[in-house]
Amino acid sequence: MLYFEDFAVGQKFVTASRRVDAAEIIEFAAKYDPQPFHLDTEAAKATLFGGLAASGWHSAAMMMRLIVDSEFRPAGGIIGGGGELQWLKPVRPGDELYVESEIVDVRESRSRPQQGVVKVRITTLNQHGDAVQTFTPTLLVDRRG
Amino acid sequence: MLYFEDFAVGQKFVTASRRVDAAEIIEFAAKYDPQPFHLDTEAAKATLFGGLAASGWHSAAMMMRLIVDSEFRPAGGIIGGGGELQWLKPVRPGDELYVESEIVDVRESRSRPQQGVVKVRITTLNQHGDAVQTFTPTLLVDRRG
Repeated sequence: MLYFEDFAVGQKFVTASRRVDAAEIIEFAAKYDPQPFHLDTEAAKATLFGGLAASGWHSAAMMMRLIVDSEFRPAGGIIGGGGELQWLKPVRPGDELYVESEIVDVRESRSRPQQGVVKVRITTLNQHGDAVQTFTPTLLVDRRG
Repeated sequence: MLYFEDFAVGQKFVTASRRVDAAEIIEFAAKYDPQPFHLDTEAAKATLFGGLAASGWHSAAMMMRLIVDSEFRPAGGIIGGGGELQWLKPVRPGDELYVESEIVDVRESRSRPQQGVVKVRITTLNQHGDAVQTFTPTLLVDRRG
């Protein structure tokens, strides 16, 4: 468990990896992002993606699960206020994703004396080492005591 | 179907609404964000949220589905490069969410002559009219012809 006081700029964390499969891409898309390039292997060929690709929200959700299951355990939970989200490359069936995180800012909270604000740059990479997504949220982290 | 040339700054779009229920909050969290405040009504009471709340990624996914099902139909599909994402208030069981979007920038793409770039400010609101999430992505939209 990491309290606000345990965080420092430059700390790095890495997750395990997760294999993406076509069935999960299609299941997520059917619920939340039913567009041809996320839903149908054949129809996807005629789109900008040139083949089936995960919804960006599915990629974000998989990033979250990798982090929740990792050693990155801020006190109070992983509670984000938001940040800049970028999708850099398509996520494809068969990809093996993992996540690298780096602390980029640590500061006290003006409005919440019991928490501090930790900013993290979170990069999702595939099996080729290509960054497919970045997210740079601010997190609210409990202070010690 | 809206081509790049059909978009102009200031255009607004609104979606239908969607009811959030506890079972769906828990189902999403179990797959992608298994933390107590998203997973368990009782355990959530002792957390910063003070009760069950949807994962931010679930809120984002519901926003996407509302838009995909709406009259907002850019040519080529809704293809985002990313943008600033902010979670402003918890999303709770029983909330009725809807989405308002406003075009905030329209410009040609230097790298893709067949597409243009449309920036949209997307606000998710609940039944009280409170904004619970904003997302301001750039979208790649096909040009006419």
